Amino acid sequence: MTMGFAVIGAGTWGQSHAKVYAEHPDARLMWVCDTYLERARQVAALHEAQAFTNDYREALADPAVDAVSVATPDFAHSEIVIAAARAGKHVLCEKPLATTEAECLAMIEAAKKAGVKLMTGFHNRFSPPVFQAKQALQDGELGDVLYIYYRLSDTIFVPTKMLSWAARSSVLWFIGSHVIDTCCWLIGKPVRRVHGLSRSRVLKGMGIDTPDFYSSTLEFEGGAVAVMENCWVLPETLPTIVDVKAEIVGTNGAIFMDTSSHRTIQKYTQHKGSYPDVLVNYQVHGKSMGFGNECIRHFVDCVTQDRTPLATGEDGLRAARIVLAIEEAVRRGAPVDMPA
Amino acid sequence: MTMGFAVIGAGTWGQSHAKVYAEHPDARLMWVCDTYLERARQVAALHEAQAFTNDYREALADPAVDAVSVATPDFAHSEIVIAAARAGKHVLCEKPLATTEAECLAMIEAAKKAGVKLMTGFHNRFSPPVFQAKQALQDGELGDVLYIYYRLSDTIFVPTKMLSWAARSSVLWFIGSHVIDTCCWLIGKPVRRVHGLSRSRVLKGMGIDTPDFYSSTLEFEGGAVAVMENCWVLPETLPTIVDVKAEIVGTNGAIFMDTSSHRTIQKYTQHKGSYPDVLVNYQVHGKSMGFGNECIRHFVDCVTQDRTPLATGEDGLRAARIVLAIEEAVRRGAPVDMPA
Amino acid sequence: MTMGFAVIGAGTWGQSHAKVYAEHPDARLMWVCDTYLERARQVAALHEAQAFTNDYREALADPAVDAVSVATPDFAHSEIVIAAARAGKHVLCEKPLATTEAECLAMIEAAKKAGVKLMTGFHNRFSPPVFQAKQALQDGELGDVLYIYYRLSDTIFVPTKMLSWAARSSVLWFIGSHVIDTCCWLIGKPVRRVHGLSRSRVLKGMGIDTPDFYSSTLEFEGGAVAVMENCWVLPETLPTIVDVKAEIVGTNGAIFMDTSSHRTIQKYTQHKGSYPDVLVNYQVHGKSMGFGNECIRHFVDCVTQDRTPLATGEDGLRAARIVLAIEEAVRRGAPVDMPA
Amino acid sequence: MTMGFAVIGAGTWGQSHAKVYAEHPDARLMWVCDTYLERARQVAALHEAQAFTNDYREALADPAVDAVSVATPDFAHSEIVIAAARAGKHVLCEKPLATTEAECLAMIEAAKKAGVKLMTGFHNRFSPPVFQAKQALQDGELGDVLYIYYRLSDTIFVPTKMLSWAARSSVLWFIGSHVIDTCCWLIGKPVRRVHGLSRSRVLKGMGIDTPDFYSSTLEFEGGAVAVMENCWVLPETLPTIVDVKAEIVGTNGAIFMDTSSHRTIQKYTQHKGSYPDVLVNYQVHGKSMGFGNECIRHFVDCVTQDRTPLATGEDGLRAARIVLAIEEAVRRGAPVDMPA
Repeated sequence: MTMGFAVIGAGTWGQSHAKVYAEHPDARLMWVCDTYLERARQVAALHEAQAFTNDYREALADPAVDAVSVATPDFAHSEIVIAAARAGKHVLCEKPLATTEAECLAMIEAAKKAGVKLMTGFHNRFSPPVFQAKQALQDGELGDVLYIYYRLSDTIFVPTKMLSWAARSSVLWFIGSHVIDTCCWLIGKPVRRVHGLSRSRVLKGMGIDTPDFYSSTLEFEGGAVAVMENCWVLPETLPTIVDVKAEIVGTNGAIFMDTSSHRTIQKYTQHKGSYPDVLVNYQVHGKSMGFGNECIRHFVDCVTQDRTPLATGEDGLRAARIVLAIEEAVRRGAPVDMPA
Repeated sequence: MTMGFAVIGAGTWGQSHAKVYAEHPDARLMWVCDTYLERARQVAALHEAQAFTNDYREALADPAVDAVSVATPDFAHSEIVIAAARAGKHVLCEKPLATTEAECLAMIEAAKKAGVKLMTGFHNRFSPPVFQAKQALQDGELGDVLYIYYRLSDTIFVPTKMLSWAARSSVLWFIGSHVIDTCCWLIGKPVRRVHGLSRSRVLKGMGIDTPDFYSSTLEFEGGAVAVMENCWVLPETLPTIVDVKAEIVGTNGAIFMDTSSHRTIQKYTQHKGSYPDVLVNYQVHGKSMGFGNECIRHFVDCVTQDRTPLATGEDGLRAARIVLAIEEAVRRGAPVDMPA
Repeated sequence: MTMGFAVIGAGTWGQSHAKVYAEHPDARLMWVCDTYLERARQVAALHEAQAFTNDYREALADPAVDAVSVATPDFAHSEIVIAAARAGKHVLCEKPLATTEAECLAMIEAAKKAGVKLMTGFHNRFSPPVFQAKQALQDGELGDVLYIYYRLSDTIFVPTKMLSWAARSSVLWFIGSHVIDTCCWLIGKPVRRVHGLSRSRVLKGMGIDTPDFYSSTLEFEGGAVAVMENCWVLPETLPTIVDVKAEIVGTNGAIFMDTSSHRTIQKYTQHKGSYPDVLVNYQVHGKSMGFGNECIRHFVDCVTQDRTPLATGEDGLRAARIVLAIEEAVRRGAPVDMPA
Repeated sequence: MTMGFAVIGAGTWGQSHAKVYAEHPDARLMWVCDTYLERARQVAALHEAQAFTNDYREALADPAVDAVSVATPDFAHSEIVIAAARAGKHVLCEKPLATTEAECLAMIEAAKKAGVKLMTGFHNRFSPPVFQAKQALQDGELGDVLYIYYRLSDTIFVPTKMLSWAARSSVLWFIGSHVIDTCCWLIGKPVRRVHGLSRSRVLKGMGIDTPDFYSSTLEFEGGAVAVMENCWVLPETLPTIVDVKAEIVGTNGAIFMDTSSHRTIQKYTQHKGSYPDVLVNYQVHGKSMGFGNECIRHFVDCVTQDRTPLATGEDGLRAARIVLAIEEAVRRGAPVDMPA
């Protein structure tokens, strides 16, 4: 059954949402919305959307729209998601779901009340290596998790050139929330205690008031530990914009992942060396590929086949609560317990 | 438009064909055929095929079948492909198309006469890193190709344990044909001269009369060179069954690929260390992923949307001619020119 | 000037000390001492020492001995070092210097009183990549250190098969002390606060009462942070016995190190895959090579040329104090401040 | 016994020779000679040589000189080496020994007549990973060699900016000779047949008349094959100036080497990413380290202890003959047999 989709927020990821909807046999791309009308227009034209606007309420008012993607800045999710839910649209919201607990709860409540699906865009759950790790854990190949080390960092390009609103988010919200969800999903138990520290120096010195990095520790029920590292000031000379390393040590085995500098392909031109993306979001013969896009396809399938998304609003809430607890631990300089 | 597909040969790759057909919204999996009836039955049951048989002519006689995959041993392609074409079915034939020029020509002729599509399963053209390389070349980022080094080898597991018919093929036919097609596709010019050498020692000593390895050189019109390495006796202690390395050196840049030991993920259990596949043929949440499967999906799209496959019967013929010329060079101990 | 050296403790590293002394043009290997007399005899014979014994006091009584290496188990350093100092011998003591503060202080005091050199075997300071990192920091290429992530772990082989006395040490003492010294040396400022956590499960379940891993955080004066990871239960299927990864993020640049699985050389035999050591302790044409041996050569040079060792007893004391503070933080479940 | 050494040719490697002689306890650095007097002066001053000159005959006339290093351009070895031998000096000549067979023979003859040692600077024989490979072969861990793939290439920096005389040498002479010697040393049998091809385009287009790359094949007595790749036009954006990959496939095992992009250490500054050398020629605490320097130390040991160098003039001759045969094969476009 073909259904109608709208995209709200047509930045980097919003454009991917639009392209996936345009390609999917079961989806029609109805609207592209962006506060920059010209960008909305261009993205709509590129993917042959039915319409575009700089007022998302237009899209929500359209009865041909069954579901929407919300890919606006981190701090601008809740109002739109709640309005979409109230308009009876299923919602795929980019991570983090929101940056306060109250917003997350209101979003979940709105979706529940409206009887619509609310998915959080934790695309790592669709990552081939992360999924293989999940499967190895489920199959018992590694025994129980003793600890995870997970690094997800960006070069300084991201908070200084890619995002205009970095100071209103943080590396912990922006990508740390991915790591939190991934660790929670892999370990499958609640977090009981967190600790963290951060430092503000480089970005602050550039007038962007957000920490340079966070080092955070999650203690799970049952004893498993996750050590997270999230940095926003890696040098731009790195061959990738992102640096991802993970290690899962179990009682019977271990998995090591490197999803950024694995060098499946290295390209050296006259101007620079880079490792083209062949994992997250790329194209082959014009078709959207990569697990970032699989995540969006999953939402289409959930909507058209009436299935529950793999990552729900509750998962978004959980990650937000953990971020907030880490921030509290940073302030206190001491570990913070999380309620059972 | 949904169309009917049959799979002939239900080994490793045939099973992937069946799964892709079963999953594709535009395809129905009608038949699974295998000389081992029990295997046909099991694969059919797993993917909910309509029927199974050990006589592929049954499937060809079924008017509900629009297209077939031929995934039988290398030497057993032509008869089936020709019969399928004559029955008016589109054909996706696994590589190598056939192991004689006459067979290839007859297969192409039969398809042409019947007005059906004939695709050769050169799935590397769908490989994310190979495609990125192709695009970098098309975009002029590397200048003109000076040379390519391409290694595609298997551990000794493949010719001794996986294939019962290794002595009726060779590492050059079995995987070298992939490399040949990839180099031809990347360089985009005809091969004018080839040279090669091989040695027969380890496998021959085990009673499997096929060379241990080939080292081959292709000289293209315009001067580009491709050096190929194909070995079938790598130790089984390698963390992957396959070893793939490629290097493309252009007048203005270079690309390096490692699609086997890139270590995107490493898994160490109590018993062994391995690098799980996250590129060619794997599953995420039960869904067929990887470029091997994208290649099969492409065939579905070509059939249902009446498009020309990216890799045709002619491409299969070209690769076969080059393999045959390399074999001739090995016999002669001297380079062999190829007709313009 | 040629001087006399003795080795006390002829295990893995003690044998390297003996070989380096035997090779060095300025050193004569006088004694090899080990509680297992037969091992002392064999090592002495191999490296043509003048004598061997199971009572180290014999070696200390020999006036031809100018300096000794103490390479006994972690807990058995102080008594011997103090006796050696009192006998007027210079001492190279393997890390950790000792496992209590009182012992470290007594060792330093004894050396000071006797006017002999006391070196702690922190060989990482001689590691080519670590030294390059140190130099890049000194040259200002990276700006100031924001944080370091340093992993140094062993497979479970080490605490279960290599060391008989693992339960009397810990992964934090045994190799964590290396990381502590390296981070302190790289950052060049005092540690003001530490935090840590550990878990005891796998080894304890095997009857070896020592934690499986420690995750520790060092906060330095000035704001730099070091996150350490030390695990003793990695699977034995890893291609190396040790897993070392480090990352140094500065305000202007970053360094990444992998000194265990860099794959400079990979060896696959019929039985296993391994990455032979080409960095720490290996031989080329029969000669001791690697930074572990350079560290010992440095001691010879310090003794024969009357120079101060690069890593002193005070450095050993500093590392021990930090280990003890981490252990305290683990017990408390809260960060521990360190005196200025 | 301390002996006197002179260095003739004070470029990149000549400076390393000077430094090693200056550091070695058994050597005194007497002279530094370079056609650029100022460079000779500077290098002499840096390493506290006794004297410097732009006329190497001065050094040869000095009776305090026992041995000399010849590190002049490839084409300028023979005259100096022969003069040195006639003056009774032992000689360490950088590779290639010479670029004609007649010169090589005359050099060997001169050394023999004078009773002096003649060593060719094939430093790969001292490379830790290459030595480990040699040892694995000698220990039978890999069985017999089936084939070797060996890539040794430079970025275009080398022939265009580092060497003023690239057009008077070639990538095959300059670094291919290293590969040839390494393969011959590893396999331990004579070469019976060679083939090769090269292309001249990029460098020629820049006015430097030397091939961009060579692809060469060596067939050894007994059947082993070595495929060599030597390129001089890799992009300068590579993180290292050199690209080295090797693979040794035996009847029972395999070894893979990457001695350039192993990423033991990666350094990213604001300006570029690079992989600092920790293998060939680097310093730790001011001391010359790396196998390039070990090779020079070996020469000191051979001279002072009257031992035969590991790589002799005959080894240099062998490599030169093979280069010449490859050049002949390139011209002919057909394999060339080598006399038994």
